[in-house]
Amino acid sequence: MAKNDGGGSPRSSRWLATPAYPVTQSSAGSKGPTAMVFLNMGGPSTVDEVGDFLSRLFADGDLIPLGRLQGYMGPFIAARRTPKIKEQYAAIGGGSPIRKWSEHQCEEMCKILDQVSPETAPHKPYVAFRYANPLTEEMYKRLLDDGFGNGKGGRAVAFTQYPQYSCSTTGSSLNELWKWRQRLEGKTGPSNEGADGSINWSVIDRWPTHPGLVETFARNIEEKLAEYPEERRKDVVLLFSAHSLPMSVVNRGDPYPAEVAATVHAVMQRLKFSNMYRLCWQSQVGPQPWLGPQTATSVEEYISKGQKDLVLIPIAFTSDHIETLYELDKEVIGESGHADTVKRVESLNGNPIFIDALADIAKEHLASGIACSSQMSLRCPGCKSERCLESKKFFANQQPLAIPS
Amino acid sequence: MAKNDGGGSPRSSRWLATPAYPVTQSSAGSKGPTAMVFLNMGGPSTVDEVGDFLSRLFADGDLIPLGRLQGYMGPFIAARRTPKIKEQYAAIGGGSPIRKWSEHQCEEMCKILDQVSPETAPHKPYVAFRYANPLTEEMYKRLLDDGFGNGKGGRAVAFTQYPQYSCSTTGSSLNELWKWRQRLEGKTGPSNEGADGSINWSVIDRWPTHPGLVETFARNIEEKLAEYPEERRKDVVLLFSAHSLPMSVVNRGDPYPAEVAATVHAVMQRLKFSNMYRLCWQSQVGPQPWLGPQTATSVEEYISKGQKDLVLIPIAFTSDHIETLYELDKEVIGESGHADTVKRVESLNGNPIFIDALADIAKEHLASGIACSSQMSLRCPGCKSERCLESKKFFANQQPLAIPS
Repeated sequence: MAKNDGGGSPRSSRWLATPAYPVTQSSAGSKGPTAMVFLNMGGPSTVDEVGDFLSRLFADGDLIPLGRLQGYMGPFIAARRTPKIKEQYAAIGGGSPIRKWSEHQCEEMCKILDQVSPETAPHKPYVAFRYANPLTEEMYKRLLDDGFGNGKGGRAVAFTQYPQYSCSTTGSSLNELWKWRQRLEGKTGPSNEGADGSINWSVIDRWPTHPGLVETFARNIEEKLAEYPEERRKDVVLLFSAHSLPMSVVNRGDPYPAEVAATVHAVMQRLKFSNMYRLCWQSQVGPQPWLGPQTATSVEEYISKGQKDLVLIPIAFTSDHIETLYELDKEVIGESGHADTVKRVESLNGNPIFIDALADIAKEHLASGIACSSQMSLRCPGCKSERCLESKKFFANQQPLAIPS
Repeated sequence: MAKNDGGGSPRSSRWLATPAYPVTQSSAGSKGPTAMVFLNMGGPSTVDEVGDFLSRLFADGDLIPLGRLQGYMGPFIAARRTPKIKEQYAAIGGGSPIRKWSEHQCEEMCKILDQVSPETAPHKPYVAFRYANPLTEEMYKRLLDDGFGNGKGGRAVAFTQYPQYSCSTTGSSLNELWKWRQRLEGKTGPSNEGADGSINWSVIDRWPTHPGLVETFARNIEEKLAEYPEERRKDVVLLFSAHSLPMSVVNRGDPYPAEVAATVHAVMQRLKFSNMYRLCWQSQVGPQPWLGPQTATSVEEYISKGQKDLVLIPIAFTSDHIETLYELDKEVIGESGHADTVKRVESLNGNPIFIDALADIAKEHLASGIACSSQMSLRCPGCKSERCLESKKFFANQQPLAIPS
């Protein structure tokens, strides 16, 4: 197995069948600059930011649907949970590393894109978080300050950092982006072709089985399996763990559970089904029913059945955050009584194979000329949200320029 | 797109990258005969069999977990539902076609296997249904009558006809097979190597993304899409529909929802994501919560949103049965008010590409020497069933002969 080589010449990776563009190409014909905007939920970088983070999180009806009680219950739950969550962030070093990783991933990806997609260079990195700084509003104002939009046009790509699409995650971030687009660049018709000089947006809305994503997960699993004695290795159980959803969201028709399962299957195919595995769901909160089986319970149950060699794989987030560093490492593994045999694979973080994959996804998107996947245009069967309807219409009707190949 | 050619020379299919064995090989070195046993739930072939069918179905705690009430509630529910279900079978022609299709598929597959796997020829076709004739007991007695087991050894392959594994379906059929194995051939230790002359079993327990299965689904979808006017075709929504599970089974860790999602993703990849799609779940009964979104509701909701071009794809059954012919065709489509634009793709039934795929799966299994997938050995995290434990142990410890290549 090839080792991740810490950088070097990313274009030479054999597993991405993407031809390398000449890096010395003149930028005279460039359609750039292109703003590359990473969307994610974000997390508080310091313990002091926890309160604001939770307030925004519980105010988001796309994530936690509290209906007419949102304005009352949201702040109440957020305030009640703040002290406990502050302790958790203190325990993982005083804050979430997600901003550091997101900025690093986006900057490194843009450097690669400048080489492999000179037609859209230079690529400028931005990060927009849903519940923590830098918020969407802040990112959008930076875009305008940097010369995008406001009569000057320019192209921006909203690149979700959730590989699998959920209305609670990517959907919520896009609704927020659409809201600030309308507030800061004015309301336009759905078929805005940039004629008014506003920013021309396109969206990378899902990438659950991209070969580079799958390869990174698979290698991380192989490295973790190698830590077990050879005679036990093939009997280690792989537990893929993704953030759960309330059943009300699943039953509305959210595509996330099926896309997470697609990622798991692709990773297992890449591993030639070398080990037994299950998909579990973590981070359920509150009294309403959520999708299971629960990760924490599953670990306990396998241990009680005598299966103590378990590898946990966070399959729906790409950076470390509270759900890996605290919930999995300190709670699920730390309290299992078998912290020597229950292990977690590395998160993707700064892995250069992963950053290569991001660049490959972005390059293909920039060359395609599509506004978003056709799948993104389809609302969930049970969706009642007018915001979703309008936001989806807006993004689907954007008309990004295709790059002649 | 190549047409299904109705038979002909199945080995020439380009989409199965399997080299053909010489059909004229002498049978002198054959390890056959090999019994090929198709497992499925079955259905009543006549209206008069409906009562017995439902009695067995509601008595099965693996399928419908009623706990200590099983013996009391099962017959009660079965009796109460019988008249209504009789009407449904009468409406689809007086019985389920599943026996006809299963026997046809198994016989045709065995003919192909005799050519492509002469080392295990002759291949003898058997069908064992869980709730209808031919029942597992009947099939097993036929095996013994035909010279398998009872001191004479011989090899049999249990080939589930559910592409995706659920404890409620394939698991239940295997538990039943194990039960009759113990009753009719005596209790043996878990490491039965056939030294006592009992039948040597192996299991094909899942095949959710086999390329031939995916190809058959994809072609059927393409054929159905071709019925829409070209200008509307790309906006048709594909609704994949699978039999639902109670949330108690999902939350126990049943692998079925994730494997169904894997099939859907593989089919959409093969179709190059040409259309918008969703995965829905059908046939929920009773008051307890089941996995959604519901197929019938989703169709209604899309129609009410103005999306009237819908193609339903039964993705977890391979033959027509009451859930396609009655529930989808007569209820969901028939009562939609848009029977001209809401359509259902053909079931796989006698499709020769599908039967080729079955032969390919079986041939690979026969050559592998494995008893079952490693995944089958893993119980669900929340499993409390001793029957599952013992049945899984039995099958995993069988030691079928590998065919030297």
